[in-house]
Amino acid sequence: MRIVLDTLGGDNPPEEIITGGIEAAKELGVEVALAGPRELIEKALAAAGRSAERISIPITIIEAQEAITMEDSPTEAIRRKRSSSLIQGILAVKEGKADGFVSPGNTGAVMAAATLELGRLAGIDRPALAVLIPALDGRRFLLLDVGANADCSPLNLKQFAIMGQVYMREVFGIDHPKVGLLNIGTERGKGSELARKTYPLLEELEGFVGNVESNRILQGGVDVVVCDGFVGNVLLKGLEGSSHALLKLIKRTIQRSLPAKLGAFLLSPALQRVKEELDAAHYGGAPLLGVRGVVIVAHGHSDAEAIKNAIRVAKSAVENELPRRIEEGIARLAPKVTWFQTLRRKRERERKEKERGEGQGS
Amino acid sequence: MRIVLDTLGGDNPPEEIITGGIEAAKELGVEVALAGPRELIEKALAAAGRSAERISIPITIIEAQEAITMEDSPTEAIRRKRSSSLIQGILAVKEGKADGFVSPGNTGAVMAAATLELGRLAGIDRPALAVLIPALDGRRFLLLDVGANADCSPLNLKQFAIMGQVYMREVFGIDHPKVGLLNIGTERGKGSELARKTYPLLEELEGFVGNVESNRILQGGVDVVVCDGFVGNVLLKGLEGSSHALLKLIKRTIQRSLPAKLGAFLLSPALQRVKEELDAAHYGGAPLLGVRGVVIVAHGHSDAEAIKNAIRVAKSAVENELPRRIEEGIARLAPKVTWFQTLRRKRERERKEKERGEGQGS
Repeated sequence: MRIVLDTLGGDNPPEEIITGGIEAAKELGVEVALAGPRELIEKALAAAGRSAERISIPITIIEAQEAITMEDSPTEAIRRKRSSSLIQGILAVKEGKADGFVSPGNTGAVMAAATLELGRLAGIDRPALAVLIPALDGRRFLLLDVGANADCSPLNLKQFAIMGQVYMREVFGIDHPKVGLLNIGTERGKGSELARKTYPLLEELEGFVGNVESNRILQGGVDVVVCDGFVGNVLLKGLEGSSHALLKLIKRTIQRSLPAKLGAFLLSPALQRVKEELDAAHYGGAPLLGVRGVVIVAHGHSDAEAIKNAIRVAKSAVENELPRRIEEGIARLAPKVTWFQTLRRKRERERKEKERGEGQGS
Repeated sequence: MRIVLDTLGGDNPPEEIITGGIEAAKELGVEVALAGPRELIEKALAAAGRSAERISIPITIIEAQEAITMEDSPTEAIRRKRSSSLIQGILAVKEGKADGFVSPGNTGAVMAAATLELGRLAGIDRPALAVLIPALDGRRFLLLDVGANADCSPLNLKQFAIMGQVYMREVFGIDHPKVGLLNIGTERGKGSELARKTYPLLEELEGFVGNVESNRILQGGVDVVVCDGFVGNVLLKGLEGSSHALLKLIKRTIQRSLPAKLGAFLLSPALQRVKEELDAAHYGGAPLLGVRGVVIVAHGHSDAEAIKNAIRVAKSAVENELPRRIEEGIARLAPKVTWFQTLRRKRERERKEKERGEGQGS
């Protein structure tokens, strides 16, 4: 198995990303293809005590000088920066030279490139970005979409729900994943037009538990939470911002009294553990579900450890043949969709053939 | 000045709400009209050491036996439960018998009753529920809408922005309130269709600072953040859930070691202060902006102290003639809207008169 790692475009310097890739190759039993400038990678490898030529750990290089930055417009970048590490990495997956792709770079560009180059799975209209969030019951739930699609249809959300269930079952071994619809009230009939129209579609799915509110999901009890990408992104960044603000507020309050300072000193290992538990949400990165290939978006701030964990998630997704399972799940759980699409395509084909026949006749 | 307090329908027993009303009447220099069952209120007054007949503090009673509960459907409840404390309280404002209304009850029912009975201000298409959230810079920003309108138009959001600016200026004395559009990216052109279409409308306002992301708003630097009621409600409940989850997580982690337990003991006054600072977001309650009257929705969990603070906010809104200021603000800041509406109404009137004339002629 070979996983491509995009070494350029993250917030950390390429050396840090490369280190994560080398660690993954050493520990995880996968080959890591580092996409980036050859001289930089070889230097990093040499600094790590081995040259690219005589390494015992499975590392290869996909030569790419150009970087897609966080500031680049996704649609423009994927058209103009064809020689970038991001595009070259995605193309390696497309051409069957690699099994999965991991990038800490421009999320929009990864999504656009993956959708355009790899294509969507059968039965999926829009790929979705999914993030695992730790809940108080010690488990994690998958929130999607967190930013791939700012505007969604009810059918998009149903497909997200199915993809989320397949992911939690295949990658995390949860037998009957529970799905909730993110809403602003628990009763049926509450919420926006999108939420109200999505509810009956989700009722067709096994494991649908109804509407869930954003203050309750952190308590646990649900495995998959679906919403459109605008709401999901606002919620995800809100949770992130809130935890950081609270920890800062605690720190600041501590400065004000001596007993509190002593208390904080005694408490600091515990607080550190809490911080790690929260940051763990980013470890492993966010899978882009619904494209024809394994694509993992790591957090922009990813350090070597986070990159290694993202490669671990990619490995697990490849082992479990995630894209195929999602396609099967869609075909099984949303037969009406597939049937309808097939029917529509058939009718369109027949109509075109008829038109062509008439055109020849005249 | 007389403020009506709805004593039924909160999560706490009416006695707690009534106590808050009595405290407010004692301390704030306003008359408080308690809407609820007479015998219950008189009992509470007697328990507080005075009978309703011979009190020196300014308390009156608006007799109402019926309660609108949290489980009631707003539209049904306001039609069927006309004798409820909520409806009777709103009617007192409508009939000029009171200057403001405070309720810890069913938010949807308060909004529906206020909109229906009091009506909307000129130039406002949809009233919005606004909440003050503490930021790390020690100031607070106003988030709206947080749930009155699940689906909004760009024009709705522009009106929210103006109402928010007027509120922050008139009630909190901020001279040039800065407004941000809640979005999932900072660049112009980012986000949902609603966000993209709202941006140019907000550019017409003085103090518009562009898009703001949900992880940044807690850092401070902006006074008003606008979004539709679905996104606002999800974000507000998410922030609430996240802080509570984090404090619980810290508590749980503390249990695991003796030094941490000691540390927590020393730290507990500081943590308590943090918790109070966060809970303060709810103190004072959320103003329903855009209706013809002062209406404050207190949190369902409000205790006596929170109720008193909500009455304080109502008092300040009445003193500052908030509804009139909002109408003026809309007329000044969105002349096109007002002009257009006036024009449309004029044309409609002319058309009807013409039809009537033609009808008489035939």
